[in-house]
Amino acid sequence: MKTLLTNAWIIAMDAAMSEYRPGWLLIEGNKIEALGEGDPPEMIDANIRDMGGDIVMPGMVNTHCHMAMSLFRGLGEDVDDRLFRYMLPLERKFVSPEMVRVGSTLSALESIMGGVTTVADMYYHETEVAGVIARSGMRGVVGQTIANFDAPDHKSIDEGFALCDELVEWCAGQGRVTASIAPHAPYSTGPHILERVAAWHDAHPTSIIQIHLAETEQEVAWARDTYGLTTTAVSERTGILKPGTIAAHCLLIEDADIDILARTGTGVAHNARSNGKGGRGMARVEDMRQAGIAVGIATDGPMSGNTLDLFSQFGVVSIFAKILGRSRKPLPTRDVIRMATIEGARVLGLDAEIGSLEVGKKADLIRIDVSAPRVQPIYDPYSVLVFGAMPTDVRDVMVDGVWLMRDRVTETLEPARVLSDANQLAGQFRTEIAAIDAARAAKD
Amino acid sequence: MKTLLTNAWIIAMDAAMSEYRPGWLLIEGNKIEALGEGDPPEMIDANIRDMGGDIVMPGMVNTHCHMAMSLFRGLGEDVDDRLFRYMLPLERKFVSPEMVRVGSTLSALESIMGGVTTVADMYYHETEVAGVIARSGMRGVVGQTIANFDAPDHKSIDEGFALCDELVEWCAGQGRVTASIAPHAPYSTGPHILERVAAWHDAHPTSIIQIHLAETEQEVAWARDTYGLTTTAVSERTGILKPGTIAAHCLLIEDADIDILARTGTGVAHNARSNGKGGRGMARVEDMRQAGIAVGIATDGPMSGNTLDLFSQFGVVSIFAKILGRSRKPLPTRDVIRMATIEGARVLGLDAEIGSLEVGKKADLIRIDVSAPRVQPIYDPYSVLVFGAMPTDVRDVMVDGVWLMRDRVTETLEPARVLSDANQLAGQFRTEIAAIDAARAAKD
Repeated sequence: MKTLLTNAWIIAMDAAMSEYRPGWLLIEGNKIEALGEGDPPEMIDANIRDMGGDIVMPGMVNTHCHMAMSLFRGLGEDVDDRLFRYMLPLERKFVSPEMVRVGSTLSALESIMGGVTTVADMYYHETEVAGVIARSGMRGVVGQTIANFDAPDHKSIDEGFALCDELVEWCAGQGRVTASIAPHAPYSTGPHILERVAAWHDAHPTSIIQIHLAETEQEVAWARDTYGLTTTAVSERTGILKPGTIAAHCLLIEDADIDILARTGTGVAHNARSNGKGGRGMARVEDMRQAGIAVGIATDGPMSGNTLDLFSQFGVVSIFAKILGRSRKPLPTRDVIRMATIEGARVLGLDAEIGSLEVGKKADLIRIDVSAPRVQPIYDPYSVLVFGAMPTDVRDVMVDGVWLMRDRVTETLEPARVLSDANQLAGQFRTEIAAIDAARAAKD
Repeated sequence: MKTLLTNAWIIAMDAAMSEYRPGWLLIEGNKIEALGEGDPPEMIDANIRDMGGDIVMPGMVNTHCHMAMSLFRGLGEDVDDRLFRYMLPLERKFVSPEMVRVGSTLSALESIMGGVTTVADMYYHETEVAGVIARSGMRGVVGQTIANFDAPDHKSIDEGFALCDELVEWCAGQGRVTASIAPHAPYSTGPHILERVAAWHDAHPTSIIQIHLAETEQEVAWARDTYGLTTTAVSERTGILKPGTIAAHCLLIEDADIDILARTGTGVAHNARSNGKGGRGMARVEDMRQAGIAVGIATDGPMSGNTLDLFSQFGVVSIFAKILGRSRKPLPTRDVIRMATIEGARVLGLDAEIGSLEVGKKADLIRIDVSAPRVQPIYDPYSVLVFGAMPTDVRDVMVDGVWLMRDRVTETLEPARVLSDANQLAGQFRTEIAAIDAARAAKD
């Protein structure tokens, strides 16, 4: 049975930036078989769904996330020591396969409801995240963290690599889930382990490397004081910067670092809201894009960026570029939507399959209701998407030819159950947080 | 008949930052008669409405807007010459009492749906805006623009002042609408007219002065080159900076300007998203607040900031403060919500009446549904409001004891009619825009 979408305002995000209005789109299996403008083809063997004139566009790609951390969302806002005060104590005590499963499921639900169809995740117990992605119907890159500190799921680097091997096995034959190895950051793993990561990736060429890069002043100081180099240059020497690598943040970079990222074919995940909330600054997105680097938009973990839709990021992404450029012109709204779709897909190495609505590509698409007074009248749909649309405007979501949400009703996840599981764990955290705060108060 | 709200999570925004959970609130006439925690009083003569555990907080205050410009929303994004290319030609040809009424009504609808109960507006044909505010049930400060250029509704400064006199008459006896005189900006009116504005305000002491201040580099250069002063210092000399004045933007200010604003009791409207989108920079909000200046949050006109809810501003307001302070600590989430409520009310000189939920204050309040997966679990309601909530989460809105929206259904404005009127005018604009673009293309 095929599916025919009619009466759509199609924003294809292909190279020609095609729009079809009224547009139609035909899906067979998990692929787009045809699309066009005007009268749809006569189909007697298709499920027909009227899009009501709404925008239909590619599902969005979140290029960097820690999904399980939705359970820590909003904890310790506005304090600089929240990592040591709340996060590490809670992670040491509570991070478990169950916690990762419950938190990632909540994040998958939110992502789907907000129009994100593909997510690149990095955390612990990552086969659990792989399971959540598979069951939710989303598409994802799942990154097992490798860290040279007391990680919740591996006591040694050898154990960390073994978890990556397991993840590769788990993902083999899975169409929608790509295995990934995720060294935490250059300073927290060190060059020798990064070299081993690069070698591991050579042996698993379809996998993805994910790493936090050039995010903090401490990291920059470490590279400079230890090696007399930038953290990007230290990373390049280890061989981990290459096509198939996602470098998250790239905030504190010099011109030479931009050359390195471009030359090595490294993709960048831009975490605008997270960087801003941390007071860390504004990444040089336009400079990186001008150099030919694929730059996607990312939410970071919900403890850093709070929400997992990309609409919440668009305004900040746009504003950062315009402030850095001292003009309205940098990063036009069309480019923001390119970053959220086809360019994000390129960061994940999935641009041949997803990121635009074209014949032969996977049917990953979303429908956005643009009838709200807040976006009317409409002169430019890209302006609406960047500065007016909200995650709640997403009405339908399809991944791999399967509906994950129709008319705001999710079809693979049951919200009441997901929220109940999340709040049960949050209750335990609240007890622990009260103990931490009481101990702190007693000490002061 | 009284109204009793039960089962609410009350965020009072009073000086003690009181929270009542479960809380109740009793309204008589247009005022809050009582509120508290635990079991509500037994009432046999009240309409009882169960808030379902949702957050109930003061209605939000938008301290600077050009409501009618919703009809130009999203026009010419990403071009630096949009003022001369689109806005002025369209304003010259189309700004009329009808256009102002239709655009302002669309904006009132959006504001109510997004939880804004009070708005400070400045535009042309401002008695039309006053009428829209009155009919919509909102509260507002309506500012008649005075400009020393070819304004759409006055050919001379005398005519401009006459419009202000008319507006004062219109607003006399209106409980919810305050008249305001709005000189466009120091450079575009000039000191002599500003002196006359100050004198007019002395004669109408319950009115409000609104002005764009220290927004652009050109303005700063004008003041420096003409008077050897900052634009804030030039404005002070004219007498217009005083309690009852709202200075919008205050972006390009020096330490001495902060002293002037604090000493004169001038309020500031912070237009974060508009300033950012224009590539203009980040206002020194924390410095101004530390100096005791009342700083409210503002959307600016929808052509500059696109949406008219304050949720869309919160992330940017917060991020600007944290980037300027290079830390997570500046402008905690509680302060952002203070700016959106009680501090915004102070900017408008209405803090004795609105801005917090306290006995004797006007019943201006909103109910916010916090059940969405994107805000769960909840550790801190202020974090939820600043970084997670969306205008679509606003469920009920009351102003002056009257429901303007219940369960997302507006009670004073009919959305289908409002949108139809707006889109009819937008259709005329599209024709004109096509002609402008064609003429431009022919010239190139």
